[in-house]
Amino acid sequence: MKKYKVAVVGATGMVGRTFVELLEERKFPISELRLLASENSTGEKMVSGNEDIRVQVLNGDSFDEINFAFFSAGTEISKKFAPIAVKAGAIVIDNSSAFRMDDSVPLIIPEVNPDALKRHSGIIANPNCSTIQMVVVASPLHDAATIKRIVVSTYQSVSGQGKDALMELRQQCEALFAGKEISLEIFPHQIAFNLIPQIDIFLDDGYTKEELKMVIESRKIMGLPNLPVSATCVRVPVFNSHGISLNLEFEQPIDVKTARSILFKASGVTVLDELKSNRYPTPQSASDKDEVFVGRIRKDDSIENGLNLWVVADNLRKGAALNAIQIAERMI
Amino acid sequence: MKKYKVAVVGATGMVGRTFVELLEERKFPISELRLLASENSTGEKMVSGNEDIRVQVLNGDSFDEINFAFFSAGTEISKKFAPIAVKAGAIVIDNSSAFRMDDSVPLIIPEVNPDALKRHSGIIANPNCSTIQMVVVASPLHDAATIKRIVVSTYQSVSGQGKDALMELRQQCEALFAGKEISLEIFPHQIAFNLIPQIDIFLDDGYTKEELKMVIESRKIMGLPNLPVSATCVRVPVFNSHGISLNLEFEQPIDVKTARSILFKASGVTVLDELKSNRYPTPQSASDKDEVFVGRIRKDDSIENGLNLWVVADNLRKGAALNAIQIAERMI
Repeated sequence: MKKYKVAVVGATGMVGRTFVELLEERKFPISELRLLASENSTGEKMVSGNEDIRVQVLNGDSFDEINFAFFSAGTEISKKFAPIAVKAGAIVIDNSSAFRMDDSVPLIIPEVNPDALKRHSGIIANPNCSTIQMVVVASPLHDAATIKRIVVSTYQSVSGQGKDALMELRQQCEALFAGKEISLEIFPHQIAFNLIPQIDIFLDDGYTKEELKMVIESRKIMGLPNLPVSATCVRVPVFNSHGISLNLEFEQPIDVKTARSILFKASGVTVLDELKSNRYPTPQSASDKDEVFVGRIRKDDSIENGLNLWVVADNLRKGAALNAIQIAERMI
Repeated sequence: MKKYKVAVVGATGMVGRTFVELLEERKFPISELRLLASENSTGEKMVSGNEDIRVQVLNGDSFDEINFAFFSAGTEISKKFAPIAVKAGAIVIDNSSAFRMDDSVPLIIPEVNPDALKRHSGIIANPNCSTIQMVVVASPLHDAATIKRIVVSTYQSVSGQGKDALMELRQQCEALFAGKEISLEIFPHQIAFNLIPQIDIFLDDGYTKEELKMVIESRKIMGLPNLPVSATCVRVPVFNSHGISLNLEFEQPIDVKTARSILFKASGVTVLDELKSNRYPTPQSASDKDEVFVGRIRKDDSIENGLNLWVVADNLRKGAALNAIQIAERMI
């Protein structure tokens, strides 16, 4: 079996660590794993299988002989170094938003639009975390009954904001329990035991960039440039895994039983919907799992053909590193 | 000024304590405050103003000479003792769901349907917490442009579940930080750093009773028996104050500027919507406040006449005790 030289850019971040863990767990055929990060992480060692790998400083020569480069170090790093990696011969799978809406860059969820992988110029974009879990569930239902409109509200965990955000949530909780003042570094407001209805910056129309991503990325992935999508994104005091409350309106009738059986068969989806035993997806049970979990599937009687669903997935896995690795797996 | 004899049933609970606090804070004209609870709380003393009041055991004689009885001790207690209080000559303002959908019982939000107070048979019902904050915001917008459909997702704090639920959230957080096992007493799943998409029991159609309440109660309060409402209710690890993501579809056009100016003038509503300074409602800033806070007011381009809004209110105050006291204030 052919083996590949793989680089992880942003290796010491939350998503970077998940990349290293999942590449090992999924036995991705690797001949060399090159871990790249900023100077701050120089000299750090990370464990992959039985190996200790020293983190290297990212620079223009980092991609020599690399076959796959997974980027997860923010938009600016992707903009600067992805073209360098492509020029060096690597295929870049980019977790930032730098290239997602670029017409020459496929935006891929392997379960949804693998065919779009055929045309690329070296860079493949990985969608936004909340978009991925929404589309993995919405797409098979769209195939059955044609989605007319989506109204989505998210409940997004802090791990999407990085390591420091996890620390901030914990430190604020501890400070509050000790009756001390909390400090704000990462989030604009207290996140402990609070809700922040803002993820990313505000745009002129009053939506956040995160909300816009859910609209435009799902349209691109599903190949429906005019799909009406209305999104509200909220940060919640959960360490990991995002929840979304998904309201779908369809052109054709679709009942709960049909929807459940479609989702039961859908790739990458696990239906968890046993109300008698209070079983439905929660972030706590979805964390460290690969699947997108869906439950609370019910008819929305406020419109002719409507469904409500509750969807939870590990935003570091399917929402980021796992989806990117699955893209690479499709390409080898 | 006439003074009234007031009873609080369930005085030692979260809402009961808020009743005692608010009756004092609002200088409700009281000649006697009778605090009633189950035998478990016998002998407990509560402070109202400069007075220590001993909690009495609720029984059939508890309502002698009482003018207003505020009930907040659960549905069973209301069903049993509200008729006794009425027979003794009291007006009952009931915070449980026991009588809310009873045709002879007005279901009141003073800012929305005060006229419905005219016809009552001794019992007035206080709506569900999340319903109140939704309708306080939706109703003035409905008056301007006629609501066609509501899609709402809630982010509900644990204080709505009582004192023990607050303890459980805190204890689970501390156990997790200490690397210990958590215990589950009140909630069916871990609530610390988690999301539970279930509030109250499940009904046959897959909705929870809480979700049904939001539908049928808002219809009754707004006098729109066929209003299409689709609700998803989720418990979040927040101590106090509920958030709701509210999507409103209207019959007539209504722009953001108009909506904002209507809400700016609306009774009981505070608009907090200054995106440049990251100002919007959060549970932390809404707690211990009387108003319903609204922000993130934006046009929903996925339909012809749509708005998205983010609404936060203190569920113990406007969502419960405050609204009930405001009802009594209207009656005196």
